Amino acid sequence: MKVVKRNGDLEDYNPEKVVKSLKNSGVSESTINKILQTIKDKRFDSISTDKLYKIVYQLVKKLENKYNASIYSLKQAIMRLGPDGYTFEDYIAKIFAGEGFKVKTRQVYESNCITHELDVVGDDFFVECKYHNSGGITSGIKDVMYSHARFLDLKDACKNKGYHFRKLWVATNTKFSDECIDYGKYWGLKLMSWKYDGKNSLSYIIDTKHYFPVTLLPSVGREVFSLLSRKNILLITEVRDKSDEELKSIGLSADEVAKLRTDCDNIIEAAKKIEKINGGKK
Amino acid sequence: MKVVKRNGDLEDYNPEKVVKSLKNSGVSESTINKILQTIKDKRFDSISTDKLYKIVYQLVKKLENKYNASIYSLKQAIMRLGPDGYTFEDYIAKIFAGEGFKVKTRQVYESNCITHELDVVGDDFFVECKYHNSGGITSGIKDVMYSHARFLDLKDACKNKGYHFRKLWVATNTKFSDECIDYGKYWGLKLMSWKYDGKNSLSYIIDTKHYFPVTLLPSVGREVFSLLSRKNILLITEVRDKSDEELKSIGLSADEVAKLRTDCDNIIEAAKKIEKINGGKK
Repeated sequence: MKVVKRNGDLEDYNPEKVVKSLKNSGVSESTINKILQTIKDKRFDSISTDKLYKIVYQLVKKLENKYNASIYSLKQAIMRLGPDGYTFEDYIAKIFAGEGFKVKTRQVYESNCITHELDVVGDDFFVECKYHNSGGITSGIKDVMYSHARFLDLKDACKNKGYHFRKLWVATNTKFSDECIDYGKYWGLKLMSWKYDGKNSLSYIIDTKHYFPVTLLPSVGREVFSLLSRKNILLITEVRDKSDEELKSIGLSADEVAKLRTDCDNIIEAAKKIEKINGGKK
Repeated sequence: MKVVKRNGDLEDYNPEKVVKSLKNSGVSESTINKILQTIKDKRFDSISTDKLYKIVYQLVKKLENKYNASIYSLKQAIMRLGPDGYTFEDYIAKIFAGEGFKVKTRQVYESNCITHELDVVGDDFFVECKYHNSGGITSGIKDVMYSHARFLDLKDACKNKGYHFRKLWVATNTKFSDECIDYGKYWGLKLMSWKYDGKNSLSYIIDTKHYFPVTLLPSVGREVFSLLSRKNILLITEVRDKSDEELKSIGLSADEVAKLRTDCDNIIEAAKKIEKINGGKK
């Protein structure tokens, strides 16, 4: 059986990959075996990885439960942090803050010649965020080199301007092209994509540190998300830590709050279980 | 009377601007006066600069002749060097060659980390071309900074790789934003746009050195242009220097060749007259 990747390449279907992502999402062994058997029985040929993902997602929802299906769909949940890129910037800022950095979003800095608005700024670094609201879009070398030029322009002005940048991060929710990786390594840039770079990758950090976005909650549709994001409530833990009154005050109904509450508890519960099972294996 | 610029700004109608561009196109004083009077009589208010340009162009064609109208429409002729950017790169290469530089187009260079394809390359410089096939599109800071980062990446690798780049040009057929200009000045980049930088601007160089593109010829429609550009015949002087047999061998009919010949002679004649009248005034 062959699968068609987003770039059009054909590749052998690799059940190991499916097993790994299902295990990471806390799906039980018996469900995993059932899913593998279903895929085998249906003898898909040249199925797109997108389609295969959707089929597996539906099976997890049906055979396991909707919370593990949500965790399985983390990548898609990040894509729902759109449609523009601001929310992704805020989300990345929350991850850096969670990791102990003092950060601000969308700060204006003058170089010796022009003005730059930077997405996420820490004490001695800044993060350029490249958000794509659909998969298969690779962040290309132009983005990375433009960010690098901004970094060099600001570094050049550090002495005069009273700020100090030592590091540049470029963060994307999809992937970087190979030349981005080569360029980043050579010039000492920190690149963070969905899968790159190992323990610094977005998927690894979110999975292990539970920076789950609210878009992972089954009860968070477009409207509820809009109310939450307007108040910069983007993490499931932030929803958990708000009182019912606070949540109602942003425009949510009692029913919506109750559903949010249940969803939050269940996702956090599911995540804890996954941690217990997979702990130390990553 | 007010005119609406492409960016939406209102500005006072300035007859001086019309006079200047008409004089540059070799339009006679009597025609210029008639055109100014027509504009006055029609009392346009809040007319777009595009529309005004089209009205003036038609008047030149009717009251003067089609060759001066062609020269008046030089900017539009450059825009017809599309639809993609390759022909503009070839055209820019011809200008640099005409100015005495040995240049090649679309050359591949390795830095210490990645591979760059450069639009136009000379001995110790390269030119990044930003072609837009419609007016009002400004080449922005991202393009310029990306080009600068490429330049720095290649400069860094000069010693190892046996090439030597001292200068970066960025050339566009429209305009650069103010911050591009500020950035370029500070970092020592050579920027060339339609009107920038004075005697280095594209319009000045083409006007004074007669690097007229074949798209200026009334008889060069889409099909004839396609045949010419396929053979990298882009300048009117190149058409002039080809024999009838050579032109026929690329797929043009005898009739098309005859028309091309007449058009070439007339444009070159018109350009010479302009030079005589305006000579030394620029």
